[in-house]
Amino acid sequence: MALDTTELNEYRIEHDLLGDAKVPNAAYYGIQTQRAMENFNISGVELSHYANVPTALAMVKKACALANRDLGMLDAAKADAIADACDEIIAGKLHEQFRVDMIQGGAGTSTNMNANEVIANRALELMGYRRGQYEHLHPNTHVNMAQSTNDVYPTAMRLAMVLKHNELIVAAKSLKNACEVKAEEFKNILKMGRTQLQDAVPMTLGQEFKAFATTIGEDIDRIKDMAKLLCEINLGGTAIGTGITADSRYAPMAVQYLSDISGQNMILAGDLVEATSDMGAFVIFSSALKRLAVKLSKMSNDLRLLSSGPLCGLNEINLPEMQPGSSIMPGKVNPVIPEAMSQIAFHVIGNDMVVTMASEAAQLQLNYAEPVLVYKILESIQQLTNGMFMLTDRCVKGITANADVCQAYVDNSVGLVTALNPYLGYENSSRIAKTALRTGRRVVDLVKEEGLLTDEQLAEILKPENMVAPLDLSSKLA
Amino acid sequence: MALDTTELNEYRIEHDLLGDAKVPNAAYYGIQTQRAMENFNISGVELSHYANVPTALAMVKKACALANRDLGMLDAAKADAIADACDEIIAGKLHEQFRVDMIQGGAGTSTNMNANEVIANRALELMGYRRGQYEHLHPNTHVNMAQSTNDVYPTAMRLAMVLKHNELIVAAKSLKNACEVKAEEFKNILKMGRTQLQDAVPMTLGQEFKAFATTIGEDIDRIKDMAKLLCEINLGGTAIGTGITADSRYAPMAVQYLSDISGQNMILAGDLVEATSDMGAFVIFSSALKRLAVKLSKMSNDLRLLSSGPLCGLNEINLPEMQPGSSIMPGKVNPVIPEAMSQIAFHVIGNDMVVTMASEAAQLQLNYAEPVLVYKILESIQQLTNGMFMLTDRCVKGITANADVCQAYVDNSVGLVTALNPYLGYENSSRIAKTALRTGRRVVDLVKEEGLLTDEQLAEILKPENMVAPLDLSSKLA
Amino acid sequence: MALDTTELNEYRIEHDLLGDAKVPNAAYYGIQTQRAMENFNISGVELSHYANVPTALAMVKKACALANRDLGMLDAAKADAIADACDEIIAGKLHEQFRVDMIQGGAGTSTNMNANEVIANRALELMGYRRGQYEHLHPNTHVNMAQSTNDVYPTAMRLAMVLKHNELIVAAKSLKNACEVKAEEFKNILKMGRTQLQDAVPMTLGQEFKAFATTIGEDIDRIKDMAKLLCEINLGGTAIGTGITADSRYAPMAVQYLSDISGQNMILAGDLVEATSDMGAFVIFSSALKRLAVKLSKMSNDLRLLSSGPLCGLNEINLPEMQPGSSIMPGKVNPVIPEAMSQIAFHVIGNDMVVTMASEAAQLQLNYAEPVLVYKILESIQQLTNGMFMLTDRCVKGITANADVCQAYVDNSVGLVTALNPYLGYENSSRIAKTALRTGRRVVDLVKEEGLLTDEQLAEILKPENMVAPLDLSSKLA
Amino acid sequence: MALDTTELNEYRIEHDLLGDAKVPNAAYYGIQTQRAMENFNISGVELSHYANVPTALAMVKKACALANRDLGMLDAAKADAIADACDEIIAGKLHEQFRVDMIQGGAGTSTNMNANEVIANRALELMGYRRGQYEHLHPNTHVNMAQSTNDVYPTAMRLAMVLKHNELIVAAKSLKNACEVKAEEFKNILKMGRTQLQDAVPMTLGQEFKAFATTIGEDIDRIKDMAKLLCEINLGGTAIGTGITADSRYAPMAVQYLSDISGQNMILAGDLVEATSDMGAFVIFSSALKRLAVKLSKMSNDLRLLSSGPLCGLNEINLPEMQPGSSIMPGKVNPVIPEAMSQIAFHVIGNDMVVTMASEAAQLQLNYAEPVLVYKILESIQQLTNGMFMLTDRCVKGITANADVCQAYVDNSVGLVTALNPYLGYENSSRIAKTALRTGRRVVDLVKEEGLLTDEQLAEILKPENMVAPLDLSSKLA
Repeated sequence: MALDTTELNEYRIEHDLLGDAKVPNAAYYGIQTQRAMENFNISGVELSHYANVPTALAMVKKACALANRDLGMLDAAKADAIADACDEIIAGKLHEQFRVDMIQGGAGTSTNMNANEVIANRALELMGYRRGQYEHLHPNTHVNMAQSTNDVYPTAMRLAMVLKHNELIVAAKSLKNACEVKAEEFKNILKMGRTQLQDAVPMTLGQEFKAFATTIGEDIDRIKDMAKLLCEINLGGTAIGTGITADSRYAPMAVQYLSDISGQNMILAGDLVEATSDMGAFVIFSSALKRLAVKLSKMSNDLRLLSSGPLCGLNEINLPEMQPGSSIMPGKVNPVIPEAMSQIAFHVIGNDMVVTMASEAAQLQLNYAEPVLVYKILESIQQLTNGMFMLTDRCVKGITANADVCQAYVDNSVGLVTALNPYLGYENSSRIAKTALRTGRRVVDLVKEEGLLTDEQLAEILKPENMVAPLDLSSKLA
Repeated sequence: MALDTTELNEYRIEHDLLGDAKVPNAAYYGIQTQRAMENFNISGVELSHYANVPTALAMVKKACALANRDLGMLDAAKADAIADACDEIIAGKLHEQFRVDMIQGGAGTSTNMNANEVIANRALELMGYRRGQYEHLHPNTHVNMAQSTNDVYPTAMRLAMVLKHNELIVAAKSLKNACEVKAEEFKNILKMGRTQLQDAVPMTLGQEFKAFATTIGEDIDRIKDMAKLLCEINLGGTAIGTGITADSRYAPMAVQYLSDISGQNMILAGDLVEATSDMGAFVIFSSALKRLAVKLSKMSNDLRLLSSGPLCGLNEINLPEMQPGSSIMPGKVNPVIPEAMSQIAFHVIGNDMVVTMASEAAQLQLNYAEPVLVYKILESIQQLTNGMFMLTDRCVKGITANADVCQAYVDNSVGLVTALNPYLGYENSSRIAKTALRTGRRVVDLVKEEGLLTDEQLAEILKPENMVAPLDLSSKLA
Repeated sequence: MALDTTELNEYRIEHDLLGDAKVPNAAYYGIQTQRAMENFNISGVELSHYANVPTALAMVKKACALANRDLGMLDAAKADAIADACDEIIAGKLHEQFRVDMIQGGAGTSTNMNANEVIANRALELMGYRRGQYEHLHPNTHVNMAQSTNDVYPTAMRLAMVLKHNELIVAAKSLKNACEVKAEEFKNILKMGRTQLQDAVPMTLGQEFKAFATTIGEDIDRIKDMAKLLCEINLGGTAIGTGITADSRYAPMAVQYLSDISGQNMILAGDLVEATSDMGAFVIFSSALKRLAVKLSKMSNDLRLLSSGPLCGLNEINLPEMQPGSSIMPGKVNPVIPEAMSQIAFHVIGNDMVVTMASEAAQLQLNYAEPVLVYKILESIQQLTNGMFMLTDRCVKGITANADVCQAYVDNSVGLVTALNPYLGYENSSRIAKTALRTGRRVVDLVKEEGLLTDEQLAEILKPENMVAPLDLSSKLA
Repeated sequence: MALDTTELNEYRIEHDLLGDAKVPNAAYYGIQTQRAMENFNISGVELSHYANVPTALAMVKKACALANRDLGMLDAAKADAIADACDEIIAGKLHEQFRVDMIQGGAGTSTNMNANEVIANRALELMGYRRGQYEHLHPNTHVNMAQSTNDVYPTAMRLAMVLKHNELIVAAKSLKNACEVKAEEFKNILKMGRTQLQDAVPMTLGQEFKAFATTIGEDIDRIKDMAKLLCEINLGGTAIGTGITADSRYAPMAVQYLSDISGQNMILAGDLVEATSDMGAFVIFSSALKRLAVKLSKMSNDLRLLSSGPLCGLNEINLPEMQPGSSIMPGKVNPVIPEAMSQIAFHVIGNDMVVTMASEAAQLQLNYAEPVLVYKILESIQQLTNGMFMLTDRCVKGITANADVCQAYVDNSVGLVTALNPYLGYENSSRIAKTALRTGRRVVDLVKEEGLLTDEQLAEILKPENMVAPLDLSSKLA
């Protein structure tokens, strides 16, 4: 793929509906890509930024070419050259030729044409022609045969998300595992639970980390579920779902090829007109990402609260020190990793709003705003993935507990009184709690003083293991 | 339940942790409800506004009482009185006693206490006592036995949503059906599809309405799926999920009772600590409502576009006239029903943002912001339900088509040229399209003039039935 | 205004563009209001819910009638009857006749017609006719003369917001004042400031409350500024801003009358076509409400953090106890007021999203979605007002400080080392801080031990008054 | 600045609170930057991506150094070297050394340290030392003297936004001007206005474009106003606003220097404790960007509607053709530029949500989430700027009108009847409008037929110039 440097300042002339234009001879993309590059100077983030995008486009193009070949619409030489060019892209080559801005007008047409042109030019080379000799293999007539942007683009972008979300699942599992390890490590550290930031009742620090693991685990399931909805595609619907220009046998064949090539279980939508403008799967998939973001922010906030201090805060745990915390305050170390994670979460939530608005903008047979929607979902997947690896490796794995601090909270807490409810009733318990808080005396002592329970009873009820899980009360109340 | 009017100006004295207060003797609620009514004068929307709220609370309280009775913790007389009081509420009585503002501090404690107090006082009456004689049956000690707001409130609110969403499903089905009726009625009306508001290729008006039906149908499935997630509850976790004060056999029993009483398949969460602060099911259920809102707004926008004019717009369909459209422009009729539907959609999308922020606010073992989250989800369900019934009955059912307008668009369109792609190739087709647009001549005539296809071929290719669905091209390309 | 009960079951026949309909004879509203009531069964919140809405509508209608009278378009008897009817509404009467749902299609036409009909029918009575005898005074021809919903509705709704925001300013001032009182009360209580929840450097609790006062004060200014933008109106633009049916002298006269009647400085927009569809002032006013919400949530979060504990949290301040905090945990008291405030904040932020989406929905010469936008802004004003009064009276005013807890944090803190930076340099300070944290020894002792500063120097530098405000370092460094 | 390539594989050892680490010798950044680069692999967007960021940081650092020099805290040689290094950065050099991810934990500490280190190392070179010889000039002790991230970072980021927003104003003005040119060009093209997508009353196409110019003009004013709020800074507040380590004369001096250096009118906040954690100016500035986005999306939607068709849509205007519109539909050209603009708008609205959430996350004396807030505001400014230039140059400037299409709509419209209201009354006008719509007959003919107005009266009333602006009705009604 090394470019002949003598070519670098040379141009070839291409033409399209609007007329002629010079295209760098070294480029595999063509005139339509170039016009789009000029038109859309917006985010600076090009299609190639998300490797799954060129890959998924190539997978779709290959699947269509093979289906067209099998149907006798496309001669085998052309189809094979297209497929070979696609394989190169799938293998990671030529990605830098995908140049259009992720934010673009035209409902993805520029993305589709970028793919059509790169594939056509690479296929032409493979067939022994020069780039631009479209009379031998045309980006629209052959590479885009029986296809419209309106079916190819959403199909490929869904596939890109499906492929990309696998990385996110890996990151989420690593975070879940790290939390489980800590849950085990901290399973015997007794501490006070807090509701509404007020002292509540005892629990173990292990239970707290187990809850993190559980909640991430649930989101792994949810995101996998929602990703399945992305696998329902409108390939073969062409321009508006009616399948104009496509043979009636083509859609199922192309979808089957795509499943085979991608290794994902792609399914043909039942109503292709609906599927062409419908953004439902994007909306709910983005929502699942948002849900994960909400949980990661909550977890990050908890880590910041639990490690607050060290002297003027809760100080139950220590986060690993990743960098000096202050340019002015010597010795300060901040919870920078959870702070970054929460900011990613806010970002993902904002992205979900973009997805929502872009989805709502669908009109009649199409949604022009799909590109920004695709961009933001891919970005959310990427940043959540990065964030979870960061949180796992640079924070959770290195967390240590201050067991004595945790125990001291329990020892002094009035919240223990809750455990006495079944024995003393709510009114008695309230009275004792109030006295304990007012006087600073310990609940245990007050109960003893009033002779409400024997020492043995109290000892049994207030055993840590009896307070952090439901127990069989029948014997105790007897 | 008729109140003795002699009681109306009389008060009884109740007391709680903060001291004594006068409560209207006529009230079934008690001192804690009254404090909350004074504290939270915010939205003016009381718990009773959503009938499912008192109902679901009563179902939960009954389930807990029966479980406590079976476990021997609560004597049968008290348990039965509680259950009977709950049955009255389930039957729709005493709802007006649920007075706390839907927006409240305390993570739902006031809602739970409102239920505890109303049930206690009604149960006291049923047992032959007077309201307020809590020494015989106490709101906390007995009605709330083995319960915390932190398990009862989320459980009941989830159940309220599940119950309420059934109405939404009915509304969605009626809308889906109405669209299907129109799809059948309009199945032979040929029209031009539009992508990006520009002329695209032919389709039928029936296909357009079929797509509406399909898309609503998909959301019925999604919302049902997400509602199942709401059925996973933390009942028995009590204060922070550790089950403190609850017998180890209690949680599964209470959940089973709740399933029986409610007729919903409620499931006990696997990790009750996680389940106590986790808002995941709310987030994704609200997202599913948002997804439906997005689709309904898109559909409403389409209806407004298709009925635009009548003389200066697309004018393909007529919406039923529901009211004069203007205070100044005589004769004007506006698409008021779709306009209202879209505004509901915006409302639901805004509510989803509230849910997101409230969810993100969870801290440590609880989320204090659950009440506003609950309020907004119930409101979204209600308004979407109202909106879909409105859209069905006051708009979709009465839509008529202007078949001649639709046909005229097809006759004049250049978009037909797309159907010739497989025969002429993209370059030829583009040239012809450009000439047609520039000169105003018809595509058919230009193709004939160039002798590119025979009259018979053209007639066959451009048959309406051949343009609105994929066809077997093999014979035609021969 | 007492209705003759004999009328209650009787109807009068009215007609409009769509035909005849029965209207309750007791109603002051007419056929168009009634159709709208049937069409829009959505939120259950009627126009009358916000008293400023009927009031502002009446002010606008009166202003227009007087302008039309002065121009000779409307005879004086009719104009005076209209003005008298409007005065009654302004005085708070007949509000219950404003029955249309706040969420409505038709871009406010139903609201405008509700006003036209109520005013016409009341004016007819004042003229000695019966309700419904529109041949003597017609809702459209006379009450709505030279008006369109499209100028009257946005004008009146802007005015309603301006009137309503005055209550919010009162509430904000009361909150600001309460914070200032606390700032003074706590001005000598030394405590540790925290950044990123980690121990930072000393400050006074008074400074913390002063910052609350300052930040609320800034928002009072911002909201007043943005409210001025609402005062720019399109009255006289009629249907689309071109002023069709309006005399060229009418607009400035009507606007002047409106300023006089309302006591607000209303201004005629320079480009009435733009002003008719533009939502800019709503967007930025809602944003200012959102900004206030963000600050109130931050302040509420701080109050919850500072009062966390009491035994397992920061415990620097005590919030007044407003209600028992838990149904299960005896003695627990929660920060319910700040919790409610934050939830209001989330609500306002969600409402702002509704306003944004509704604003973006403007098309061509009008925005159909204005009603939901108006509803949500009025609701945000109301809830912020309620919330700030609640926060002031039920929380801030009763806050007490735990001065000894605060002082203990300072005494033990390593953060004092920051004050030594100018004397020791960052590297030395870092080393000492690290040692202090590792060993638990006090910074002062370590510095003394190393002989880096004299006792006198240390005493001077670490004087509380020298640490909580910038000081003249020149002498000290000498 | 050319790096000696022999250095490229070499490292220097630096140390900080956490220990030693190797830093590439070629790097001007130091150990803390490097740690941050490793910690935050999130968005891939580095500080250098926004040139105003390094520039603004350098301006602040220079201002502080000069103030410290004047106060005698920093010796002149060091201060001058720092100032010279800053000048180089202000001149655009060394920007590539600003490597930290825009999304970062630590509340901007890494950004501040990146600046401190780059400036220190460049200043060291200018003083004749080697990079890393911090004993001669220390990033913290000298470059960061009397500064904290918590005052420097927000100050610099506000300044960066102020500098950057000037580009946005230029873009907005170019768009406004282009719309004004079109307003003049189209001032005599009569067309029908549309409200709620339904035929309304006549206007000129020029008025429509004038409204675009007006609305953009208003936002130029708003954004300028809000940018002024960004100029209020907390420089000198150091860690938490108490000014610890700073001389009491320092803050006003540093702020004055910053105003001089930047050419912006920077103002010292009155309450530095408040100003340190307050995000108010960011919230409202972002809201102003959102408001502009809303307007640009509305304008883009209008352009798409007005150019819809060409044969099956409104077809009143033609957008310049920028690229082929379809990969399958020959001849199709799409409104790609407005489509891209609306997507940018959605993006900005999503970014505003991120800003809102990040602002709400402030806690106690600081907001840890400022970096993502800064990132998103800068991105919004950038994309709006790019988008408005795109919209101006690639769309608005080239728009042409289809005057005959516009006129035909007016000729056939029933909406003209509104102009007759003042003469015929609403009831008569309604009746005629209804007949015209039912029969397809022209309003003029129906009025004539009924003898309601003379030909002369009708001609006068329906003159275009009399319908598109308010007129003196007094003579006409006589």
